[in-house]
Amino acid sequence: MRVNGSQTTGRPLLYEQIAANVAELIDGGTYRPGDRIPSIRELSRQMRVSINTVMEAYAQLENRRLIEARPQSGYYVACRLAEPDGGHEKGRAKQELAASAVEIGRGPLEVMRRLADPQLVPLGRGVPNVELLPVDKLNRMLAGESRRFRVDSVSYCGAKGLKRLRTQIAKRSLDAGCRWSPEEIVVTSGCVEAVTLALLATCRPGDTVAVGSPVYYTFLNSIQWLGLKVLEIPSTPREGISLDVLAYAIRHNPVHACLVIPNFNNPLGGVMADAHKRALVELLARRDIPLIEDDVYGDLGFGPHRPTSAKAFDAKGLVLACASFSKTLAPGYRVGWIAPGRFQEKVERLKSLLNLATASPTQLAVAEFLTSGGYDRHLRSMRRAYASQMAQVRNGIARWFPRGTRVTRPDGGFVVWVELPDAVDGLALYEQALRAGISIAPGALFTTGERFRNCIRLSAAFWSERIEQALRTVGDLARAMA
Amino acid sequence: MRVNGSQTTGRPLLYEQIAANVAELIDGGTYRPGDRIPSIRELSRQMRVSINTVMEAYAQLENRRLIEARPQSGYYVACRLAEPDGGHEKGRAKQELAASAVEIGRGPLEVMRRLADPQLVPLGRGVPNVELLPVDKLNRMLAGESRRFRVDSVSYCGAKGLKRLRTQIAKRSLDAGCRWSPEEIVVTSGCVEAVTLALLATCRPGDTVAVGSPVYYTFLNSIQWLGLKVLEIPSTPREGISLDVLAYAIRHNPVHACLVIPNFNNPLGGVMADAHKRALVELLARRDIPLIEDDVYGDLGFGPHRPTSAKAFDAKGLVLACASFSKTLAPGYRVGWIAPGRFQEKVERLKSLLNLATASPTQLAVAEFLTSGGYDRHLRSMRRAYASQMAQVRNGIARWFPRGTRVTRPDGGFVVWVELPDAVDGLALYEQALRAGISIAPGALFTTGERFRNCIRLSAAFWSERIEQALRTVGDLARAMA
Repeated sequence: MRVNGSQTTGRPLLYEQIAANVAELIDGGTYRPGDRIPSIRELSRQMRVSINTVMEAYAQLENRRLIEARPQSGYYVACRLAEPDGGHEKGRAKQELAASAVEIGRGPLEVMRRLADPQLVPLGRGVPNVELLPVDKLNRMLAGESRRFRVDSVSYCGAKGLKRLRTQIAKRSLDAGCRWSPEEIVVTSGCVEAVTLALLATCRPGDTVAVGSPVYYTFLNSIQWLGLKVLEIPSTPREGISLDVLAYAIRHNPVHACLVIPNFNNPLGGVMADAHKRALVELLARRDIPLIEDDVYGDLGFGPHRPTSAKAFDAKGLVLACASFSKTLAPGYRVGWIAPGRFQEKVERLKSLLNLATASPTQLAVAEFLTSGGYDRHLRSMRRAYASQMAQVRNGIARWFPRGTRVTRPDGGFVVWVELPDAVDGLALYEQALRAGISIAPGALFTTGERFRNCIRLSAAFWSERIEQALRTVGDLARAMA
Repeated sequence: MRVNGSQTTGRPLLYEQIAANVAELIDGGTYRPGDRIPSIRELSRQMRVSINTVMEAYAQLENRRLIEARPQSGYYVACRLAEPDGGHEKGRAKQELAASAVEIGRGPLEVMRRLADPQLVPLGRGVPNVELLPVDKLNRMLAGESRRFRVDSVSYCGAKGLKRLRTQIAKRSLDAGCRWSPEEIVVTSGCVEAVTLALLATCRPGDTVAVGSPVYYTFLNSIQWLGLKVLEIPSTPREGISLDVLAYAIRHNPVHACLVIPNFNNPLGGVMADAHKRALVELLARRDIPLIEDDVYGDLGFGPHRPTSAKAFDAKGLVLACASFSKTLAPGYRVGWIAPGRFQEKVERLKSLLNLATASPTQLAVAEFLTSGGYDRHLRSMRRAYASQMAQVRNGIARWFPRGTRVTRPDGGFVVWVELPDAVDGLALYEQALRAGISIAPGALFTTGERFRNCIRLSAAFWSERIEQALRTVGDLARAMA
């Protein structure tokens, strides 16, 4: 046990007094969640104490989760929002497990369509912020590479995609704990196509796909279109998909593939721990069930290290890892990829039947950006921006949303999942927000069942006065319902 | 009745004598098929007769199909090759009609893969000649447009595709006898994707698709992948799909869609007459069967006018017209489109599920080329080049292939269908050509049945000494088998 001053003398040390003073200001509402508190230097000057003393005080407040440091910005009053538990109760979840055909009605389809409406304030969209993209550099590379490789630029590059690009993707796979060769990669027109190819390669119509629930609604759409059944396995923001329920599910149901977003989950925002990823891969491998991993947000973590890909634990070639550059470089370039493991040949053939190959010029530009464009530097600044915006959005929720609201604490990406008090209906809130010119994604989109009625997914891809005002409006609307 | 000199005097006129002399030289083998004969001016000098007289003589020889004029090149001895009849006998065709699941074995798949091998002399490939493509102009437009529309270039353009491009496609639809609005078009990643979307929008697994036979092998591949059945309806190079057999087929089979290439058919090269197109559309419309029209070669006719699209006759919105710029501008850009008629909403949704949207930069470049790049001028020179190469390839076949070889006389595009004497096995010829470093497409690829064993499809996309030598080699190999 650490013996410190207060315990030996019975009187609080100087730094403890300072910490107590700051805590009082926070509790009393002088500083509200999201407010910037004085910097260490400022406080040291104001209170005429040493820098070290203030640092100790702030460290104590951080440990108590009262304040949080934001890189290159300072210290802020932390949001004291509870995290949602995913809205599942495990025992009940098992009883309710049943694969079902997906039938998305007109209503939800219309909601999905409206989410893409560029006229609305985009709190509901899953698109990246174009102001954070390296637009001019990329377009310059597009021009330069199509001049340099003039014939390759207009020619078919083959179903697998451009070797130059696959080589760069293979190199970067080391960061995700993998060691792919360029030959183990197929370039796709974005991550959605990669997941479509993975589902086509592993399932036939009528088969069942287990998914983490809440589930990204585009997956539900694809599963419906392919004539598959879905089996929703509860997920929590911190742990990801419940292995306990999944194990039960695959014992009692025929499951032909499992589809998850282990890193910066959409919509929950969380990252599965490595041990959990490994256990997931091994659980499925025991029954030879393919795992489709959507890792499209993997490069967008707020921390210093990229999280591991679940495919890093793939001993049997059963993991199909899917990702793209749509969130980090350019959605409109439509460049993604899949590392399909033992399904390599099948995926290549399917890609060739779907549309022969991905467009060459955009592959050339992305390959060049990865080779010499400072992708890592770009990612660092993009991640900082999203981390800061995520804090802003969470602060706004803490300030303006009704008491009892819970919100996830994502470690990367740019979506956040909000669980509102039971009285608030997400779909009704969506409708009211729409009338105010704002899009939000109602929780009902993220399941085929009746769950998540009181949830919404918000985007933290943007931050401006307009966004702030919109968030406040949504909060006001929700409070009126609560 | 026209009364001319020879009938009134009993003696041949001067131009008739000259024509008879030239005909004798041809019959005697002095001039062989494909040889250039003296120009009008040269012959007029040599024989000391007027230019007009030689012109009349040559006109007579042209009417007798002994010689043919090639634009900007002169007069040539015509190939006197019989055209194949499609290898079907109608009565038997009806008896044999049965929808069948497609099962493409390892062998044919390997053949398809080898056809794309860039190491081989490409007599078997269906790709355009990159030397005839406006490479630098296009790449310049790619660079310029991505600068001009910097944000649009990196952003999603929506499932339907770029409005600017759809507007240009709509304008051009007038040439094909249609009047589409930009809203009736969905941009796709090439024509293969357009056809895939059309099949997905009209059929479910287990359904039957009627196709013209011989059928482009990629269609068979797609039909297999989608779990559909195929019903092969005999086609002839001149008439296209047999309406007689098709009418019988749809009376006796459930047919859920019909897929044809009415203009410059691949592999037969022919164009269906307008009356035949109209009758086809009406026949299917009576039973509400969708017609999927692949018009990817439509812009590549050798004549002055673009043939009509079958969709021009579509009164019920049942025709899904598919095409692309892959044969005329840039295969690697992956820009195609579909005008899906009453399936519009479904196709838009499927496109969005497949890969959200087509890449933006290449759409921008193609839109600009259509707006201001002289697409029609480019087409004219490309068509001239293909017409001349087609004549060269047909001449080569006439010279070097075994007696009894029949070959189609395409009016556009760049593939030609060759029916060899019965003793020649197309697959064995393919194997032998492969060992000589040459690719040819064996007829067996173009059916699920046992037909076309003695046929091959050759490309006229290229012409060079290397190609000429390769064609001669294939001819020698075939003669050794005949």
